[in-house]
Amino acid sequence: MKKRPQAVILLSGGLDSATTLFFARREGYDCNCLIFDYGQRHKKEIARARRLARRARSRSTVVRISLPWKGSSLLDRKLPIPERRTPREIQKKIPSTYVPARNTIFIAYALSYSESIGARAVFIGAHAQDSSGYPDCRKKYFHAFQETARLGTRQGVEGKGIEIITPLITMSKREIIELGAALQVPFRLTWSCYYGGSSPCGVCDSCLLRKKGFKEAGIDDPLIAQE
Amino acid sequence: MKKRPQAVILLSGGLDSATTLFFARREGYDCNCLIFDYGQRHKKEIARARRLARRARSRSTVVRISLPWKGSSLLDRKLPIPERRTPREIQKKIPSTYVPARNTIFIAYALSYSESIGARAVFIGAHAQDSSGYPDCRKKYFHAFQETARLGTRQGVEGKGIEIITPLITMSKREIIELGAALQVPFRLTWSCYYGGSSPCGVCDSCLLRKKGFKEAGIDDPLIAQE
Repeated sequence: MKKRPQAVILLSGGLDSATTLFFARREGYDCNCLIFDYGQRHKKEIARARRLARRARSRSTVVRISLPWKGSSLLDRKLPIPERRTPREIQKKIPSTYVPARNTIFIAYALSYSESIGARAVFIGAHAQDSSGYPDCRKKYFHAFQETARLGTRQGVEGKGIEIITPLITMSKREIIELGAALQVPFRLTWSCYYGGSSPCGVCDSCLLRKKGFKEAGIDDPLIAQE
Repeated sequence: MKKRPQAVILLSGGLDSATTLFFARREGYDCNCLIFDYGQRHKKEIARARRLARRARSRSTVVRISLPWKGSSLLDRKLPIPERRTPREIQKKIPSTYVPARNTIFIAYALSYSESIGARAVFIGAHAQDSSGYPDCRKKYFHAFQETARLGTRQGVEGKGIEIITPLITMSKREIIELGAALQVPFRLTWSCYYGGSSPCGVCDSCLLRKKGFKEAGIDDPLIAQE
């Protein structure tokens, strides 16, 4: 039996990364999930990420990151998280939930992990449409990082470079949910809310984008009690 | 009085990063040193880095990084560190001391730190000549990362991008030592040896390159007892 190629999956516990994990598995990769505990306001998404990895029969590794600096409302409880914004408002400017260079840090770790296990691909569930206007979620950013990865790793130099794969990059939230449904992603295990309450707050950017996506896809969100 | 621009300096405690710190200070930057505790075999270089930062009247921040994977003889005590290699042998292939994607991780943190304090530059003392053949020490790698940084940060998007500056990139070890001497870098506080003994081992790649550099510069290394 041919050995499946190894991939590292950046897994946050949200809809996007969960769909990306199930996509990578369907593509035939042996998946190694990388989960970050980076001082986010709540640990709920970490627990969800671990459960999602188990459901996808994948390995998971939690890496603890300490950023001694603040500058994001996702890290600093003294800063308010934006609420009740329209999709247009959400996309207009980079919000306070932006964590400086977060994806750059995450991908850097993923490349290191990939080299240590000989993985050929890093999957990240970023997408630009219906997203929160983060600069490090854009296609051209990942394109530039691909070149950095090729030049800055042993595998890249030896011609067995690590591919940075963003399968959702051009998708809307609706399309991601449709893909996730087709891949049988257990949506009830995912967590999108910026808060870690017993149920989603329904008013942060992340909840609002999720709600819009499920509505447009015509699918019920299992996390929301249906009327 | 005009406020000096902020810079983040990647400081390891070695000759190269110490010289880079004193160079950045001379260039008029207000320096914020970023020191990594990444599970290297010994902590000696961290202590030296802190002392060097104090001597340069700069702030310093130590970030603890845990890489749950191994793959480098700098991290894994079970792997031997290469010894007694000639400069030609050192440059021939990527050695076991290569830490997967290390500079990519370091620069990612430096970008995050820069954004949190509004710094305009990241200084890194990498150089390709007389180095250990690491892929992430090459000019073209930093060039690619510059583009990644521009596209992946809020400051880059807003046109106040963070410049990745590698002042030593084309220098030989001899030239770095000459520059350091001119900048009055306290060489006796630097530490290059891959081991953390009371005096340098004299046989690891790092000691050999340092010895060669001091000899070529015609300067005595204050860490080595002179005959």
